[in-house]
Amino acid sequence: MKNLKGIAASSGIAIGKAYRLVEPDFTITKKTISDTKNEIDRFQTAVSHAKSDLEIIRTKALNELGEEKAQIFDAHMLVLSDPELLSSIEGKISSDMVNAEIALKETADMFITMFEQMDNEYMRERAADIKDVSKRVLAHLLGVEIPNPGLINEAVVIIATDLTPSDTAQLNKEFVKGFTTDIGGRTSHSAIMARSMEIPAVVGTNSASQTIANGDMVIVDGINGEVYINPSPETIEKYKNLQQDFIKQKSEWALLKDEPSISKDGTQVELVANIGSPQDVESVISNGGEGVGLYRTEFLYMERDQLPTEDEQFEAYKTVLEQMGEKTVVVRTLDIGGDKQLPYLNLPTEMNPFLGFRAIRLCLEEQDLFRTQLRALLRASIYGNLKIMFPMIATINEFRAAKAILLEEKESLKANGVAISEEIEVGIMVEIPSTAVIADQFAKEVDFFSIGTNDLIQYTLAADRMNEKVSYLYQPYNPAILRLVKMVIDAAHSEGKWAGMCGEMAGDEIAIPLLLGLGLDEFSMSASSILKARSQIKGLNQKEMAQLAEEALTKGTVEEVIELVKSKTVI
Amino acid sequence: MKNLKGIAASSGIAIGKAYRLVEPDFTITKKTISDTKNEIDRFQTAVSHAKSDLEIIRTKALNELGEEKAQIFDAHMLVLSDPELLSSIEGKISSDMVNAEIALKETADMFITMFEQMDNEYMRERAADIKDVSKRVLAHLLGVEIPNPGLINEAVVIIATDLTPSDTAQLNKEFVKGFTTDIGGRTSHSAIMARSMEIPAVVGTNSASQTIANGDMVIVDGINGEVYINPSPETIEKYKNLQQDFIKQKSEWALLKDEPSISKDGTQVELVANIGSPQDVESVISNGGEGVGLYRTEFLYMERDQLPTEDEQFEAYKTVLEQMGEKTVVVRTLDIGGDKQLPYLNLPTEMNPFLGFRAIRLCLEEQDLFRTQLRALLRASIYGNLKIMFPMIATINEFRAAKAILLEEKESLKANGVAISEEIEVGIMVEIPSTAVIADQFAKEVDFFSIGTNDLIQYTLAADRMNEKVSYLYQPYNPAILRLVKMVIDAAHSEGKWAGMCGEMAGDEIAIPLLLGLGLDEFSMSASSILKARSQIKGLNQKEMAQLAEEALTKGTVEEVIELVKSKTVI
Repeated sequence: MKNLKGIAASSGIAIGKAYRLVEPDFTITKKTISDTKNEIDRFQTAVSHAKSDLEIIRTKALNELGEEKAQIFDAHMLVLSDPELLSSIEGKISSDMVNAEIALKETADMFITMFEQMDNEYMRERAADIKDVSKRVLAHLLGVEIPNPGLINEAVVIIATDLTPSDTAQLNKEFVKGFTTDIGGRTSHSAIMARSMEIPAVVGTNSASQTIANGDMVIVDGINGEVYINPSPETIEKYKNLQQDFIKQKSEWALLKDEPSISKDGTQVELVANIGSPQDVESVISNGGEGVGLYRTEFLYMERDQLPTEDEQFEAYKTVLEQMGEKTVVVRTLDIGGDKQLPYLNLPTEMNPFLGFRAIRLCLEEQDLFRTQLRALLRASIYGNLKIMFPMIATINEFRAAKAILLEEKESLKANGVAISEEIEVGIMVEIPSTAVIADQFAKEVDFFSIGTNDLIQYTLAADRMNEKVSYLYQPYNPAILRLVKMVIDAAHSEGKWAGMCGEMAGDEIAIPLLLGLGLDEFSMSASSILKARSQIKGLNQKEMAQLAEEALTKGTVEEVIELVKSKTVI
Repeated sequence: MKNLKGIAASSGIAIGKAYRLVEPDFTITKKTISDTKNEIDRFQTAVSHAKSDLEIIRTKALNELGEEKAQIFDAHMLVLSDPELLSSIEGKISSDMVNAEIALKETADMFITMFEQMDNEYMRERAADIKDVSKRVLAHLLGVEIPNPGLINEAVVIIATDLTPSDTAQLNKEFVKGFTTDIGGRTSHSAIMARSMEIPAVVGTNSASQTIANGDMVIVDGINGEVYINPSPETIEKYKNLQQDFIKQKSEWALLKDEPSISKDGTQVELVANIGSPQDVESVISNGGEGVGLYRTEFLYMERDQLPTEDEQFEAYKTVLEQMGEKTVVVRTLDIGGDKQLPYLNLPTEMNPFLGFRAIRLCLEEQDLFRTQLRALLRASIYGNLKIMFPMIATINEFRAAKAILLEEKESLKANGVAISEEIEVGIMVEIPSTAVIADQFAKEVDFFSIGTNDLIQYTLAADRMNEKVSYLYQPYNPAILRLVKMVIDAAHSEGKWAGMCGEMAGDEIAIPLLLGLGLDEFSMSASSILKARSQIKGLNQKEMAQLAEEALTKGTVEEVIELVKSKTVI
């Protein structure tokens, strides 16, 4: 039995067979072939296997995704019946006496280059088809397997280097019981997705994809950040029991679904959810979320070739607002740049993207893009309880500029007779140290604050949260972070405004007592963390936590803060 | 007359002929040659011109730099007389019927690859010689000029894309009157060098190297950040007058050289200098510096192939300490990483190097490197008034770890009978927001603070100071920065410690009134800024400035702060 240590990214325990979602090794070497007839046979067999694959995928796509998606595979099958392509490859095997892999690669590359250079959208799509299909044939020639998560039909644990948004979109929760990746941390995309799908996950193991083979029995312990490979029957038994305990605890928490989030001594707070798309709303409601504290709109812009239209955005915002009913929905305007890139915007490569041209900085310059989003939001505002929040605000002038643009669009829509809510609150993310330090000045102008701790921590400690060499400095409980949080909350309250938090810290069991003590009004977290947090808050006395927080602010190190919290609460 | 706008990087006005320190275009294209005899002649002519160049350079090097440096050029001349190389090239021209450029390039590349692969230091140096020499011959074939700043013998203004430390090291202040570059900001290496050499400079013009030709008449206005190309006689006259005014003002400031830095109402501060090497000490003394507030030791490690030895470092530190006599010398331990890389350390490439594994983070892991530097410093400590400062401290634990290592090395040296000063103060750079926010906790353990504003500003506003797209956020006068500065100064004073500042802000005329008002004890700046700053401080009333600073802390934006300072002081 092997054992990997990683980062507990999503709670729970998964036990199942490994399914590797890892790009296979396509390295090919040139060989001289004397029996070219046999080599052509080998090529034709690979083509016919590839055709069978495509037929299965096509049928499945037709049943599950509809005719339009299935047509992609028709196009692929057409490529595999194209006599010009096939005979070119076979001719090359004969004349050059090379192996089928080389003949395939060189011929396909020639066609791809030719089609890509044509000034015709249709022909460029054919280039993409040939790329896809030749890879599939090559896999059969090399005897490697291209993973196809859409074909999974049994309970599995996914093993990957990392999971992209499009990978996770393809995962079927019915069969995918958990996953583990080589890279990533608690705030990486794959971790956030795992929590939103409520799938146990361990990320950042460094070596899962090299260590685990297809079909290995795997336990993913998303509570303690451990992965067991081919464990003993005793270990499996132990983890099945832990899994039962976890499920039992979850069902106890589930009883709190419709209860208010209120401390022992009667202080009520709001526990709300971070979401990335309208599909996430269901989980917010089933987990007793009292609203949406952060709707990350950038996923509307990602995994596509061009900007979403105003109407596409309007539909998405309207859906979320309608489904949430009277409950608050805080929408963050586009936060792109940094670790989230949009290839079609052709942004310059930066030396330090986290300190670069991103989020509101980009929106204030690319105003067409920004105004389109604001119009979609304004139009959707009448369908629910919308609040708008600008990300990465560093100066008061940036907030003023963004708000002025919002008001301009509002006036112009109203002038055209469009109905718009008059109750939209406009606030900011506090994720840049300068903004926290002069929060009292901001509080005079904004309607609310939402503290974005994922970025605030990395800037305050000058440590890239994606860089493992400095991960020891990513310290949510650093007294400096607690003091900045206090500045923001106090500033909000002294102007009669509210302060929330939408970073990972808001759902953290060590942080919750401190945040309750500091007077935080709204805690926004993964939907799957809400019931646990509510259970914790119901067991805490706010006045005691205020004293605890006051004492934590006088500490010098993280270790002292953690020790203090553990000594005064049951965690 | 053309006019370029850039960043005023070093004060003063330079008027002179342009000298382009720009790599020429070495693009070559393959041509078929029928008259190969003529082509061989053309090649031989280029070789003989290259030889003449080398003889001139050799003589100059011998006279100015001594026999050892001149021998490099002997080796180069030997390459140009090597029959094997020359006949290979000529043979290639004849047999392949190609142009001399191609024959030269391909033959030289072959020899270079061959020599580089040999496991023999001498042969690898020959590869470097061939590279250098073939470039020189190629320049003659292409009719382009390789700049050679060592050959400058008249007053010039240097035009460059950027200037590296090795470029600037070659510049002769007798002839180089100023420079202008395409890239860089006030805190870039070239700007810091310009101030240390007291040469007027405008950086970040974007296009100087494309716009200005060799021999153009150029005015560099390092006061206002402007560059004039082939100006009218009236403009030249005007700038000659401004140059005279500047020189006159400098001579007035020079009268303050030995005076204390004291405000109108009797508050005394220390005006000290930032230096990068023992060579900079002369300028500190001639500019009336009361000490060295920041000795950047990383230049000892740069522009070389391996780490400096303990003895090399000891000699450098000893020289500075001895030359400064009783005056304070604050040495910053190695601050590498971020924008300053050491190729021979083979550090991993990072996505956000400014938020990465650098400075003290690296030193605490690469302890051999750190301990070597600390031993050199400890041994040098008896030669003057040494204070040691750790860079990029983000947490108290990092400070404790670094100090523990220092004490270990001290005890071990003492046990071996080495004499070490018992008066060494140990402090930290405050350049990370977390450290400023809990400065009161740090103040219990450190001997002093030095606020590093260049980095503090970029982290506090989350804006890469080298990235032009977000340069509008690099705001020294942001009220958040002023508040952090106040936290640090107040924390130091409440524990009876002192607080200095060693970022560019310390020498800035808008910032000085505020910093004096906030109670800053030590201002460390470019040596060339000291006398001007002293003149300014002598005209200010500290108590009034304290009120001014108090008011600035209540402002929301930079613009309001600047307006306030301008309304209350004469700038």
